[in-house]
Amino acid sequence: MSLTILVAPSGFKESLSAEEAANCIEKGVLRACPSAEVLKVPMVDGGEGFTKALVAITGGSLHELTVTGPLGEPVASHFGFLGGQSERTAVIEMAAAAGLRLVPRDRRNPCLTTSYGVGELIRAALDAGARRILLGCGDSGINDGGAGMAAALGVKLLDRKGKPLAPGGAALASLARIDISGRDPRLAEVRIDAAVNWHNVLLGARGVARVFGPQKGATPEQVELLAAAMETYAAAIETATGIAVGDVAGAGASGGLGAAVMGLLGGALHPRYDIVMRYLDLDSMIARADLVITAEGSLDGQTPFGKVPAEVGHRAKEAGRPVIALAGTIGKGVTLNFEHGIDAFASILKAPCTLDDAINAAPKLLVRAAEDAVRMVRVGMLLNERGLAA
Amino acid sequence: MSLTILVAPSGFKESLSAEEAANCIEKGVLRACPSAEVLKVPMVDGGEGFTKALVAITGGSLHELTVTGPLGEPVASHFGFLGGQSERTAVIEMAAAAGLRLVPRDRRNPCLTTSYGVGELIRAALDAGARRILLGCGDSGINDGGAGMAAALGVKLLDRKGKPLAPGGAALASLARIDISGRDPRLAEVRIDAAVNWHNVLLGARGVARVFGPQKGATPEQVELLAAAMETYAAAIETATGIAVGDVAGAGASGGLGAAVMGLLGGALHPRYDIVMRYLDLDSMIARADLVITAEGSLDGQTPFGKVPAEVGHRAKEAGRPVIALAGTIGKGVTLNFEHGIDAFASILKAPCTLDDAINAAPKLLVRAAEDAVRMVRVGMLLNERGLAA
Repeated sequence: MSLTILVAPSGFKESLSAEEAANCIEKGVLRACPSAEVLKVPMVDGGEGFTKALVAITGGSLHELTVTGPLGEPVASHFGFLGGQSERTAVIEMAAAAGLRLVPRDRRNPCLTTSYGVGELIRAALDAGARRILLGCGDSGINDGGAGMAAALGVKLLDRKGKPLAPGGAALASLARIDISGRDPRLAEVRIDAAVNWHNVLLGARGVARVFGPQKGATPEQVELLAAAMETYAAAIETATGIAVGDVAGAGASGGLGAAVMGLLGGALHPRYDIVMRYLDLDSMIARADLVITAEGSLDGQTPFGKVPAEVGHRAKEAGRPVIALAGTIGKGVTLNFEHGIDAFASILKAPCTLDDAINAAPKLLVRAAEDAVRMVRVGMLLNERGLAA
Repeated sequence: MSLTILVAPSGFKESLSAEEAANCIEKGVLRACPSAEVLKVPMVDGGEGFTKALVAITGGSLHELTVTGPLGEPVASHFGFLGGQSERTAVIEMAAAAGLRLVPRDRRNPCLTTSYGVGELIRAALDAGARRILLGCGDSGINDGGAGMAAALGVKLLDRKGKPLAPGGAALASLARIDISGRDPRLAEVRIDAAVNWHNVLLGARGVARVFGPQKGATPEQVELLAAAMETYAAAIETATGIAVGDVAGAGASGGLGAAVMGLLGGALHPRYDIVMRYLDLDSMIARADLVITAEGSLDGQTPFGKVPAEVGHRAKEAGRPVIALAGTIGKGVTLNFEHGIDAFASILKAPCTLDDAINAAPKLLVRAAEDAVRMVRVGMLLNERGLAA
């Protein structure tokens, strides 16, 4: 009997889509083990690739448009409609309008970046007749709590003098009052379901500014400024709508966009895999596989908190399947993943290099890493022929 | 039955001795598989660690002394005597007097560096009563063809005016005549057996200057200058002693030191593993092991040409044992190693980094890499319990 290997990677941020990553891994697996049967489930969470993946799986449609990017400049963006649904369901990923990838590295400052374009995507979906909206969160380059998105849909965020705030998270420190009277009335009639990382909260020591601010380019001072601004913002939301968002699971997702979805747009937050797994065939593919290979740009102590490899690991472990994780970077705290269904991992790196070099060479390195991992596995399979206990 | 794993690494140049590498790998193996029995054979070739390893294995003695280093400045060095021999046998490694490690990176210029200190080590061994000398070659920082070594033992290398040459390989371009009349007379009564890389020749396109000059710091112009100087040198040796060294296997070892050993000192060259394997217990350890793990600072297309992983790979393959290679850097042409007994390999790197960072973190990274490799192997062992074919 030959090996059946399920390949279920995330995309590699800034270099490979999940589908490209799956193809690279398949290539490497087949080099090491030409007789293997390879199954592929390119994984999405709520971040980059969410819309295109769900549209592709359901046979839906993709709509391209230009919106306001995170720096206030126009960016090419898109949303979609799912196919085969009884209700006209739009699918939107926030990263397509306010993703970190849309902010050049030398301009990353989450005090200034805005989610305004996400509101424009929602408006476009409503214009196109959406009755329900799936909103994917993840890979954001903003920390404005979704205030920009809300503003694009008619919510007014005002300072003490009653003037609208400037865009960006830092401006929320001057927020005095939120006025929802001008909110797009169609929002009351559609259901918005946001797919969020359930581990992300808005406020406090594990709040969005402190956990994610630095990787979006915030200095330590900016992190504290943003953390304080989120406090002010949460208080104003509660005053305006009666909804407390401060320590709600998922409200801190995507720079706090989750807070605006539930607090200002009347939407509901869901653990992101609860949403995407309705469309991906992961569990049945796991059941068919002998071995599962997952992957992500980095694997570290954060991975168990909602990242793709941990989700794949948990589901494979429930089915009793071993899981290998491949990653561009293996970081601090990585061994925590052994408690989350990952049996073994490997970095794709082969020599000292810069991050940019690694990103550029990622496709080739991932093929190589998959081959090398399967070769190691085959060594173990040979060993066991000698009657040894694993 | 639990796993028996033989750990047989080379040292990692500029960071770990073979013994330290073996200990790191053992630690990682036991983390992944606490029930494993670990056997260790720290490997040496003729390079760094040759003397200490053979002295330790035979229960011999180590002698410390100061000699002339490759840059002409005094360096702390050592030679040894083997224990338990019928004949008083000295063991000398050329790298202890003229190794690349003794030349700071910003002063690497093989046109100027000298093997003079190696001759001083031989003289000291003769003074101490050696009747036989094992001379380990490898890891050299010179390209003087062993002319410096010969000069330290009384051989005169003269220019057209009959003046002694300056030290270093480039000066050999001016060599007119070699006079061996003043050679240390004791050399005629001792046997010198040099352990050399059998793949290294002195002259031609695959000669020592062209293959190894660049990694010793030579510019392309210097490489050509050195290649021409080696031609002149080989001709002068043949005129002086009647011995042709130009295309003899091993004569190009250690910056051409092999040429002087055979051509000027009357010694014999041997493939280096023929020498060291008389003292290492590798084959019997392989026979006891289920799996062999080897390692070296880098693994690439050069590895099959006399490097430790290939030697371990060949011997393990003859015994039908699978072999894993761990390396700091995986380089060009690495897949050639699959034809030389290596079944799978992994880099120890986990994230983008500089070479210096990698060297500094090597011990920790090697422990981690060994654990990760054995975890992969265990995945394969588990798979095979499911009745799958490797």
